[in-house]
Amino acid sequence: MPTFDAADLSTADAYALLTSLVVPRPIAWVGTRSREGVDNLAPHSYFTVVSSDPPIVVFVSVGTKDTLSNVRDTGVFTISVVSRPQLVAMNATAARVPPDVDEFDHADLARAAATTIEAPLVAGAPASLECDVHDVREVGDGTMVFGAVRHVTVADRVWRDGAVDMGRLEPVGRLAASQYAPLGEIIALDRPTTEYGG
Amino acid sequence: MPTFDAADLSTADAYALLTSLVVPRPIAWVGTRSREGVDNLAPHSYFTVVSSDPPIVVFVSVGTKDTLSNVRDTGVFTISVVSRPQLVAMNATAARVPPDVDEFDHADLARAAATTIEAPLVAGAPASLECDVHDVREVGDGTMVFGAVRHVTVADRVWRDGAVDMGRLEPVGRLAASQYAPLGEIIALDRPTTEYGG
Repeated sequence: MPTFDAADLSTADAYALLTSLVVPRPIAWVGTRSREGVDNLAPHSYFTVVSSDPPIVVFVSVGTKDTLSNVRDTGVFTISVVSRPQLVAMNATAARVPPDVDEFDHADLARAAATTIEAPLVAGAPASLECDVHDVREVGDGTMVFGAVRHVTVADRVWRDGAVDMGRLEPVGRLAASQYAPLGEIIALDRPTTEYGG
Repeated sequence: MPTFDAADLSTADAYALLTSLVVPRPIAWVGTRSREGVDNLAPHSYFTVVSSDPPIVVFVSVGTKDTLSNVRDTGVFTISVVSRPQLVAMNATAARVPPDVDEFDHADLARAAATTIEAPLVAGAPASLECDVHDVREVGDGTMVFGAVRHVTVADRVWRDGAVDMGRLEPVGRLAASQYAPLGEIIALDRPTTEYGG
């Protein structure tokens, strides 16, 4: 049975193992604008919810990228949800391009303006979050960017009976390396109850 | 188009929206042992990687649960990966049971001992991480538990050619409410290259 002591793992091997075991990961397609007014868009799959009251999400930037510079400079960012039809365009925005290159233009993606902040969104995204930077914190070789969610938009086509319809949202999960997967069969389980009344 | 200002959302509505848009989420099946020696096992889907050097992961506990008490008391925890055959058993361990009830017994799950720490693992899991608590930090109504990964075990059946085989790992993602999904078709995309050499 393959076993690994973390102390013996190279950074690359630790990355490969963790990204293949912490799966499937949701993708934050993060939209920012530089001080010079150049729009940036990049996917981040170290991404989760932290709090509901107040609503806070976090994504992790590894290395100093344009996204991180922009959130530090402007204090705001958007997150567009990635659905299956956008997978290839999303991958294109993972390219490393100079900070003066507009990533919407580079990936030939239509942008929309956020409602409450000065940052771009993906126009065709099924949903988006508009965030104020709540905190930026370095942990190991990652930089955690916490976002206080100000505003949420959901496209009509994925909203049914007062909730997000998962089959229409068609989210994509990130796996190891550059592997992705849409959802398989959606399985609804009852929340467990016990003789303890829990 | 449904739009929501965070300030107007109830905690329950914010939870429902965020858990239906940050999807699919990986599941940390967290194993801990209380000071009294009672084993606990519970799923947490606010879970991601933070750093590769050193390897650090984080999960978020909402509310004060046995898991959180135990990690604070003992400074260690395990994460077992949840694969498709274990989905129903995993859901059973989401039940609220008193701290003196052993959750492996409650869910009729075989346990294994971790290699490097005093905490239980799921014996049938395809892979596991053994962690020292790196930090515990409250953010909003969530408590983030950072784990410095000490040891990683991968079952022979999911290890092929020096890497985790995603088709054999059969990970399950968490969606909104009590919805889950295995992976659909696995799609490998080339990492993008550009004329900028990135």
